[in-house]
Amino acid sequence: MFYHDDRLQYEVEVEEPNPVFAKMLQQAIGGVEGEIRVAMQYMFQAWAIPDEHAEYRAMVMDTAAEELGHIEMLATAVSKNLEGSPLSLADVSNDGEMGLATLAGMQPRQILSTGLNAMPVDSNGVPFNGSWVVASGNLAADMYANIMAESTGRLLATRLHEMTDDPGMKDMLEYLIARDTMHQNQWVELLKSLGDPEELLDVHPIPDSFPDEVENQEFNYAFLSTNAERQDDPGMPWTEGESPDGEGTFSYTTQHDIEGAPRNVDKADPQTFNEPAPQDED
Amino acid sequence: MFYHDDRLQYEVEVEEPNPVFAKMLQQAIGGVEGEIRVAMQYMFQAWAIPDEHAEYRAMVMDTAAEELGHIEMLATAVSKNLEGSPLSLADVSNDGEMGLATLAGMQPRQILSTGLNAMPVDSNGVPFNGSWVVASGNLAADMYANIMAESTGRLLATRLHEMTDDPGMKDMLEYLIARDTMHQNQWVELLKSLGDPEELLDVHPIPDSFPDEVENQEFNYAFLSTNAERQDDPGMPWTEGESPDGEGTFSYTTQHDIEGAPRNVDKADPQTFNEPAPQDED
Amino acid sequence: MFYHDDRLQYEVEVEEPNPVFAKMLQQAIGGVEGEIRVAMQYMFQAWAIPDEHAEYRAMVMDTAAEELGHIEMLATAVSKNLEGSPLSLADVSNDGEMGLATLAGMQPRQILSTGLNAMPVDSNGVPFNGSWVVASGNLAADMYANIMAESTGRLLATRLHEMTDDPGMKDMLEYLIARDTMHQNQWVELLKSLGDPEELLDVHPIPDSFPDEVENQEFNYAFLSTNAERQDDPGMPWTEGESPDGEGTFSYTTQHDIEGAPRNVDKADPQTFNEPAPQDED
Amino acid sequence: MFYHDDRLQYEVEVEEPNPVFAKMLQQAIGGVEGEIRVAMQYMFQAWAIPDEHAEYRAMVMDTAAEELGHIEMLATAVSKNLEGSPLSLADVSNDGEMGLATLAGMQPRQILSTGLNAMPVDSNGVPFNGSWVVASGNLAADMYANIMAESTGRLLATRLHEMTDDPGMKDMLEYLIARDTMHQNQWVELLKSLGDPEELLDVHPIPDSFPDEVENQEFNYAFLSTNAERQDDPGMPWTEGESPDGEGTFSYTTQHDIEGAPRNVDKADPQTFNEPAPQDED
Amino acid sequence: MFYHDDRLQYEVEVEEPNPVFAKMLQQAIGGVEGEIRVAMQYMFQAWAIPDEHAEYRAMVMDTAAEELGHIEMLATAVSKNLEGSPLSLADVSNDGEMGLATLAGMQPRQILSTGLNAMPVDSNGVPFNGSWVVASGNLAADMYANIMAESTGRLLATRLHEMTDDPGMKDMLEYLIARDTMHQNQWVELLKSLGDPEELLDVHPIPDSFPDEVENQEFNYAFLSTNAERQDDPGMPWTEGESPDGEGTFSYTTQHDIEGAPRNVDKADPQTFNEPAPQDED
Amino acid sequence: MFYHDDRLQYEVEVEEPNPVFAKMLQQAIGGVEGEIRVAMQYMFQAWAIPDEHAEYRAMVMDTAAEELGHIEMLATAVSKNLEGSPLSLADVSNDGEMGLATLAGMQPRQILSTGLNAMPVDSNGVPFNGSWVVASGNLAADMYANIMAESTGRLLATRLHEMTDDPGMKDMLEYLIARDTMHQNQWVELLKSLGDPEELLDVHPIPDSFPDEVENQEFNYAFLSTNAERQDDPGMPWTEGESPDGEGTFSYTTQHDIEGAPRNVDKADPQTFNEPAPQDED
Repeated sequence: MFYHDDRLQYEVEVEEPNPVFAKMLQQAIGGVEGEIRVAMQYMFQAWAIPDEHAEYRAMVMDTAAEELGHIEMLATAVSKNLEGSPLSLADVSNDGEMGLATLAGMQPRQILSTGLNAMPVDSNGVPFNGSWVVASGNLAADMYANIMAESTGRLLATRLHEMTDDPGMKDMLEYLIARDTMHQNQWVELLKSLGDPEELLDVHPIPDSFPDEVENQEFNYAFLSTNAERQDDPGMPWTEGESPDGEGTFSYTTQHDIEGAPRNVDKADPQTFNEPAPQDED
Repeated sequence: MFYHDDRLQYEVEVEEPNPVFAKMLQQAIGGVEGEIRVAMQYMFQAWAIPDEHAEYRAMVMDTAAEELGHIEMLATAVSKNLEGSPLSLADVSNDGEMGLATLAGMQPRQILSTGLNAMPVDSNGVPFNGSWVVASGNLAADMYANIMAESTGRLLATRLHEMTDDPGMKDMLEYLIARDTMHQNQWVELLKSLGDPEELLDVHPIPDSFPDEVENQEFNYAFLSTNAERQDDPGMPWTEGESPDGEGTFSYTTQHDIEGAPRNVDKADPQTFNEPAPQDED
Repeated sequence: MFYHDDRLQYEVEVEEPNPVFAKMLQQAIGGVEGEIRVAMQYMFQAWAIPDEHAEYRAMVMDTAAEELGHIEMLATAVSKNLEGSPLSLADVSNDGEMGLATLAGMQPRQILSTGLNAMPVDSNGVPFNGSWVVASGNLAADMYANIMAESTGRLLATRLHEMTDDPGMKDMLEYLIARDTMHQNQWVELLKSLGDPEELLDVHPIPDSFPDEVENQEFNYAFLSTNAERQDDPGMPWTEGESPDGEGTFSYTTQHDIEGAPRNVDKADPQTFNEPAPQDED
Repeated sequence: MFYHDDRLQYEVEVEEPNPVFAKMLQQAIGGVEGEIRVAMQYMFQAWAIPDEHAEYRAMVMDTAAEELGHIEMLATAVSKNLEGSPLSLADVSNDGEMGLATLAGMQPRQILSTGLNAMPVDSNGVPFNGSWVVASGNLAADMYANIMAESTGRLLATRLHEMTDDPGMKDMLEYLIARDTMHQNQWVELLKSLGDPEELLDVHPIPDSFPDEVENQEFNYAFLSTNAERQDDPGMPWTEGESPDGEGTFSYTTQHDIEGAPRNVDKADPQTFNEPAPQDED
Repeated sequence: MFYHDDRLQYEVEVEEPNPVFAKMLQQAIGGVEGEIRVAMQYMFQAWAIPDEHAEYRAMVMDTAAEELGHIEMLATAVSKNLEGSPLSLADVSNDGEMGLATLAGMQPRQILSTGLNAMPVDSNGVPFNGSWVVASGNLAADMYANIMAESTGRLLATRLHEMTDDPGMKDMLEYLIARDTMHQNQWVELLKSLGDPEELLDVHPIPDSFPDEVENQEFNYAFLSTNAERQDDPGMPWTEGESPDGEGTFSYTTQHDIEGAPRNVDKADPQTFNEPAPQDED
Repeated sequence: MFYHDDRLQYEVEVEEPNPVFAKMLQQAIGGVEGEIRVAMQYMFQAWAIPDEHAEYRAMVMDTAAEELGHIEMLATAVSKNLEGSPLSLADVSNDGEMGLATLAGMQPRQILSTGLNAMPVDSNGVPFNGSWVVASGNLAADMYANIMAESTGRLLATRLHEMTDDPGMKDMLEYLIARDTMHQNQWVELLKSLGDPEELLDVHPIPDSFPDEVENQEFNYAFLSTNAERQDDPGMPWTEGESPDGEGTFSYTTQHDIEGAPRNVDKADPQTFNEPAPQDED
């Protein structure tokens, strides 16, 4: 179960409120690279871990709860960036240079739906969507989802860092960037612990418990060129040499050289009223 | 630009059509783990790669075009599994044992919207959504997205493989599982090639071009426990020792032990009609 | 403005309630081929028609209000098909043959969210989405959207007609199919009235007010083959002869034979932290 | 910030796993009436409450964290109901009576995407959507959103309670129903505390800080009949007598009797290529 | 069934068209607080009311049809605010001060998809979504949904009223604000009529027909603190005294003081290829 | 299966990058009128065409692959319009006139999520949605969907053409407008070939294979006025004369003059906890 206190995990100060930056911050709250996504992703992953792996469950849930605190920090940052925000087109018209451009650059619903507060939507205004949550039941696959989430999340935070020159916002983002560094590392470490601890790639191919001999043995390490002109093997690391999972040797082929197959799609049942098929002899 | 021919990349045969399996196959077409997602993801990634890295662009686009062919194979498999499908509640009532259960287990729109063909939706019936496409401009982050996609994709294909005992469907899935093995390996190989080729993790923390010294140095390698009861350091690989990116040393702390910060959220502008704030002196 | 009375436009009777059919009917309510879509589409089209074309506005709005009455008929049909529906897994287990299959084939939210009534969702359970409404400001384009909507809508109604053998439901659907016949015809007639009344295709190319000479004159009537093997002109109606808009002559070419162009995509700004580009000289 | 421990708030036991019920439970997790919605709604409301009303913020956040624990209980209930679930069409065909119906009635992604665990989607399979979160900045409006959420939530829980006869599931739902009772009452109590504590309706019309005299005084307490036949005043509580907000007297009118207004919509700019308008003199 | 005439319910005049305000108005058309939502919500509620309560059905449908007329007014207001809108980046560049900011602040699809007219989307550009429609089958729950919708709707209208200084737009909004006042009052009145007419809260807990004694009697009137530090009872109206539904007495407890329960989540079936569970003995 | 080469189908040059135009171009990529929609629509249509109509399948797939090349051209155009884009609020504040307005008018995720590249979203920022793909199994219905898509697509391209004065962008759009002209014509030609080649409307009513005599014969050619005041027959082409499908004669009636039907909706099952119905005798 879950608990809270009224502290923020780290200081959130805004020297000069900027409503356009308030819009940009929404990406880190409700966007696909944002904190709601990771908080929910880590929760659902933790809930799928059985009791015998309680040490993984505890670790994943520790970070889930941490991410809830990041949503809170960013929501606070949005409210503070919206202080003194223009609320009237009349005001901005009188406002000389920057007024209309500021109102034009705001996220409309941050005024109209919340009264100058944060929402679970992204910077384009699109609501958070549960389909982004990856909790596959397979921890190795989940760890790649997590490293990806923390990589695109850190990328987002660095871009937000470039966008602002408010010292409070820069300081907050430097904290969040640091946490993304930690999280990238801890998920890699957990990934390593799933197989031979000396060998990150021991978990591949994911899922590793599917019997190797069942998959098609002709195509599992063959790079397939689809260039419209038949190309020679470029001799790249992915067309020759041992595969990184240590279980195969890369080879090279092209779509021109494989046999392929015809479609053999039959006519539809007349009850579907598909046409021309059902009646085309008429 | 793009070309096609009328061959399937690999044979798609169905011995005993099964409309419930036709529904399940939709996950591999229009689901978040499916082929439309990877086809579009690899295209948008390729289009963001500048000319000087044409060798990466070519490789990524080769596989994008291959994935289009996988959508085609799966769409064909759906049509073939829907052959002879029940179309009438009257028929299934007369059908003894399995009729109603089969109709109950079908995806309604595979009858009503397509006349027994495939759609760009998942097995729950939810349409493909462009928000799933990760093309961040940062190739290392993108490669983790790709390994994740091919890992959850292979996991999906193995679960579909368990679900069917149709030999044609098993054979098709063994081909697709093999391709996922290859793709996992080739994206890892590309990831390795982005940094020191001997060292997969040289690319971390992603993005690596953000100056290390700017991020908060107190929190970038500290595991943060959020347990409601203060816990001792469990001595796990993610709380002590060198971090896998080789740039830090893991440490351990808890939310009870960090300072945190107060919120300091002010009252709203009366023009927002937020209440009780604007009028609470009344 | 709008009015109502308490009559249904046409009788809705259900002899034998069928909860699986109640699910199927949702496609005609909240689906992309359904009645909410056309009701809203015709309203937004009407609202965009200026006063000088009041005769079109009146006609389009007449049918918008009619479609609201069709949603009402179908919502009533859903409620009546859900009468006596199984509400308990215990009951269906005791129910011998058909109980569990019926509950399995129902739409869960028709029990859980509405207490056995209709919802603005489709048969797969996906909510109605405003993005389906086409009201482009250009009446000719809108009429094609309307003919399409009434064609896929009639196709849906005929498939539902095949699915049921309840005489009340068949009768209701025969009414709705008839209205779709009428609506297809009236939108075609309106389309004809927009140009030379003797010539349906006088409105093409849509929009017709864009000056013909500005568009690229080499490619506006050329069929482009994209087959990976260069194909000869198949001599089809769309590769030779006069174009149906009467403004061009079809020709034939292939992607192998056009010049195309290089991409010329430059490296990204380092502030984006795109990689490898910004740092790849390092 | 947020904390967790590894206990469930209340016992979750399943005597006889039922995969169809696992699907139904998803409505209480990721549905519009479900626990993710209220958890996020209460968080975003709390974050918008300024410091001077810290007592409200604390209370709202107490319940937000409680709701996270309810998601956890329900996710556990889903996993337990999916134990021993059919995973293969071959197995269910051999399974005699109930096998296929069970597989037909499952949520496909609970097998294919999670390996028999819960997801942030509803019982129809539609993902949680951030647009459902109401946090308007106005606490009185928010409280109505919360009472509504707890009312539809309790309604959902009672329907789930009828659906199962598993004693463990009934016991868990009786706990959740009790919590919904409490939450309905506490939000009503908070609503009362916003105005005159003796008078629940003192907060109306919401927002109350908008000056009463500005709104149109002819139509603010007039019931408007839209029946196509002009109806007499039915003498209902909403057509006569004092209004419940204590600020007006109900009256009755009809759309036939109000003046209304013409539209006066002009032709479009030719640059829009709207037609027939831009070219209709031709 | 439904009817229309060509009048607007109330005058819609725009003195100075403002395309940025045209974007803002979309929230009142296609937003979660907007008129499409209430129109459809009241319709689906009315369709679920059985014949014996025809007086409620008539009243709810009266207002549903009224709301359709509000969409129409707002769509007209959007078209009028878009008159003379900038359509070319070249023009705005020459336009001195305000041109580019205006184009920057417009909703792109109001130009590109409609030719300067309204759409069923919100002010952020997100399409109307059918999941917002609450029609639960339980009229008391529905009335709370309606009061909430009219409260957030009135709040939205007051914020739009502050944003504009166009006298025509202010006049239209003062009409719509007045109608929201009426609708809040009429839904409260209907809610009162569902139980003891002297006692608004007689309907609680919703649904009231679920037997009181079945719900868990220990937790149904207990406020649960989730603060990470155990807090004393704050003596608030929601922790002591009679509950507003008149059926219980509030008490106070904390998550630290309740017993809770262990999870007991077992390993997954190997056929799911969940890992590490299925193979971790290896 | 599919192939690619590294050429663009037509030259994409940008003389003066414009980030606001980069946002507008997204409508042609990921919008409902855009290229992803038609590419996927034509693919799914082609995959539903049985072998005996291979000539249609080849033609539809030729254009599907062409449309993929158009996405590629537009994605390239987006990247080029984003070159030199403002990335920092500090920079734009120093930038005199146009800086802030430009940043305000950009699509946030084109900076934050992609590092200045294209995405599968529309100009409002809403992701591509698979529900837009029409592939009904009935080629005549599909052709109307295609003509509609190419009509709204050409309308979009002409509006984009007016918006820019960059010679490179105008040239690219004149190419795309030309292709839309061709595609409108080829789909009309295919539509004609489905019936009597001299008679476009021979395919109506769609689906034509449903037996004419089954549909309700009283209402299939009757225009239904829904005006609240009974109107006389206006003598329009859709109220009298032969219907364009050649199978009926238009007539005129009004909702006042048809009989209609009562609803007859019964009370709900008490297990639904619908209220007031289940308990209203109490």
